Amino acid sequence: MAKIVQKYGGSSVQDAESIKRVARRIARSRQGGNDVVVVISAMGDTTDDLMDLALEVSPQPQPRELDMLLTTGERQSAALLAMALNDLGVRARSYTGSQAGVITTGRHGNARIIDITPGRIENSLSMGNVTIVAGFQGVSKSTKDITTLGRGASDTTAVALAGVLGAQYCEIFTDVDGVFTADPRIVPSARQIPQISYEEMMEMSACGSKVLHVRCVECARRENIPVHVRSSFSDNPGTWVLSHNDMVKQKQMEQAVITGVASDRGEAKITISGVPDQIGKAARVFDIVAASDINVDMIVQNISAISTGRTDISFTLPMSDGKKAVDALNAAKGELGFEDLLYDDQIGKVSVVGVGMRTHPGVTAKFFDALAVNKVNIDMISTSEIRISVVVEVTMVDKAVQAAHTAFGLDTEGEATVYAGTGR
Amino acid sequence: MAKIVQKYGGSSVQDAESIKRVARRIARSRQGGNDVVVVISAMGDTTDDLMDLALEVSPQPQPRELDMLLTTGERQSAALLAMALNDLGVRARSYTGSQAGVITTGRHGNARIIDITPGRIENSLSMGNVTIVAGFQGVSKSTKDITTLGRGASDTTAVALAGVLGAQYCEIFTDVDGVFTADPRIVPSARQIPQISYEEMMEMSACGSKVLHVRCVECARRENIPVHVRSSFSDNPGTWVLSHNDMVKQKQMEQAVITGVASDRGEAKITISGVPDQIGKAARVFDIVAASDINVDMIVQNISAISTGRTDISFTLPMSDGKKAVDALNAAKGELGFEDLLYDDQIGKVSVVGVGMRTHPGVTAKFFDALAVNKVNIDMISTSEIRISVVVEVTMVDKAVQAAHTAFGLDTEGEATVYAGTGR
Repeated sequence: MAKIVQKYGGSSVQDAESIKRVARRIARSRQGGNDVVVVISAMGDTTDDLMDLALEVSPQPQPRELDMLLTTGERQSAALLAMALNDLGVRARSYTGSQAGVITTGRHGNARIIDITPGRIENSLSMGNVTIVAGFQGVSKSTKDITTLGRGASDTTAVALAGVLGAQYCEIFTDVDGVFTADPRIVPSARQIPQISYEEMMEMSACGSKVLHVRCVECARRENIPVHVRSSFSDNPGTWVLSHNDMVKQKQMEQAVITGVASDRGEAKITISGVPDQIGKAARVFDIVAASDINVDMIVQNISAISTGRTDISFTLPMSDGKKAVDALNAAKGELGFEDLLYDDQIGKVSVVGVGMRTHPGVTAKFFDALAVNKVNIDMISTSEIRISVVVEVTMVDKAVQAAHTAFGLDTEGEATVYAGTGR
Repeated sequence: MAKIVQKYGGSSVQDAESIKRVARRIARSRQGGNDVVVVISAMGDTTDDLMDLALEVSPQPQPRELDMLLTTGERQSAALLAMALNDLGVRARSYTGSQAGVITTGRHGNARIIDITPGRIENSLSMGNVTIVAGFQGVSKSTKDITTLGRGASDTTAVALAGVLGAQYCEIFTDVDGVFTADPRIVPSARQIPQISYEEMMEMSACGSKVLHVRCVECARRENIPVHVRSSFSDNPGTWVLSHNDMVKQKQMEQAVITGVASDRGEAKITISGVPDQIGKAARVFDIVAASDINVDMIVQNISAISTGRTDISFTLPMSDGKKAVDALNAAKGELGFEDLLYDDQIGKVSVVGVGMRTHPGVTAKFFDALAVNKVNIDMISTSEIRISVVVEVTMVDKAVQAAHTAFGLDTEGEATVYAGTGR
């Protein structure tokens, strides 16, 4: 008998009807002879609605109390799903994150899982129950207060549980069919990827693919848990995220240099110009940004064409942190001695990802050529062993994605991608 | 510094505005130098809405899962109230029933408090926090599952917490000004009662007064915790529920024979006629009813006028249990050998309550005379040391309450009660 963990997102449990539909799906897995653990998100817009209520009561809700409030959403969907399963004759029990032994750091609103003590879950499984765990939540190791885990955290909970329980695999049910070679809204000829390595998926997630959060893929790789991303609305085969060794070698896959193209419109760029060209100045810039708890993504330091004794530093960061970073840097203007600070949120990042580029030279040239032919100007560049990212004007993102997708032969056969005029 | 427990009902926290109003009220108590523990109900209709959702998912929701679902309502209001207090500069923390150490039996939907282990609450108080506890809930001693406590349970939680914490008193904030000599909707000249003994309040609650649940008053008497019932919408003085010894002796109070008149339209009457007049037959009737987990209230066995060898038995029970009792008795018709079973839910119970009747003879006569003058027919009678109850036709309940209220001199001075035509 296989042990599997399934995770259903909020769009899969929007109302009573969809909860019953999910219950039937789980019942099939259970009746197929599996031990099933389910991690569930809050129904539809519940979390947003609770957040609105909190903001009606308090302009800046206390993080501890906000976590107490928001975690009720997943508890409700977990209980309702257990009821629906019991009605189908499938024994089921729901557990809060705390009851399920999800131990976290104490950072409310963005806690990290430290450990999972799965005693109650294992006990519930051994009693023959489908065991439902409220996602997105845990309990602080130090204070025993209820915590929430931040973005994409229900997926991470599911994979972490799969690891601790020694599950065979983890199924992530969502509202799309799987991972695609590009966002099908941008590239209509994008293909679904049958299998992708952890490393590639991490790069895709970090570069704007919304299907799985990067933390979840990191966790899957660490625990070596195969993750099956699939639609809760169909029986389509979905995408397997696996270790490179576990991937079924296919001829066409071996030939593919690039696995997918990702894009991200959620970043902004800050340029600090006229920074004194002294050792340690750049480090101070990023010290100040880091002190505001902001993660910087790409960094470029321009080389002064003529020796002016000053330089320009540009970096990208999440758009939502833009104001905080600008304020912090302006406050330190005297110390840093820069001349000007520019903030630009009209940018987008386009990345090509693929383990194939390790062994295929010329990928960068091919990518940049495709952009040039399509008159897409490159603003910043960053690379990893299996990824090349460029920052372009936000209005050029779609065209850049389409150009790369075609250039690397990812379009569905027999369908031509229309390059121009298909922006969203 | 006094330690006090306050409880606010759902009508006091209907929306964001009223949560902030309650927060200001609590802040006043706190700033007055008290250690404050608050027990809070779910917002407005939240519990009903969650129940509706459960019934959409499942016609008969599993009790364990229903408790998991319903308890989220109080957790939400507790968290929101803590946010509002923190915004007022008053440190506050919310706790679930489980976190607060409310240990209960395992009977989902109607659990009883076995014990309260107040370590976390005391710790929170010692840190200077207003400490907010989600009402209506606890955690099962045996299974560690989340339980709900049944009707009136948040009041009981508050009083039990007051007992365990050694609080000076417990304030129950509600949507009425206190306990009245009769329901003011029935008797416009009813007066608010400044103080009432535990014993009288228990009889009032058991006989239909909705202000406090009988379990809560029982608990207050056992723990000897003064309970202050008052409006959350005003600063009116409210009603103190106290031990008889703690009551401030007032001349007019000593003279009052009857403290209040209660009425209850929630009962039904079952009459089994033609029961063989044999030893043990009546006992079997009530065995069968008890086996269905139904609490019988009043019982009358008619004496046969001429010896027919058969007798009639009538009893009252909660209307909500009517169908279950009728079904159980009809199923046992063969064994019991009765001729007919009549079910009547067009009845009401009217009770006069007062410790004064212990020392004043003639109370029964005065009560029955008042009913007779007003042409109210008495169907059944039951009495305790400090209470007389009668069952009358439901249409006569208002008239009976008004008649008793006037006969025992409870009407507000200078205002005459209109006897006829003032039914609801």
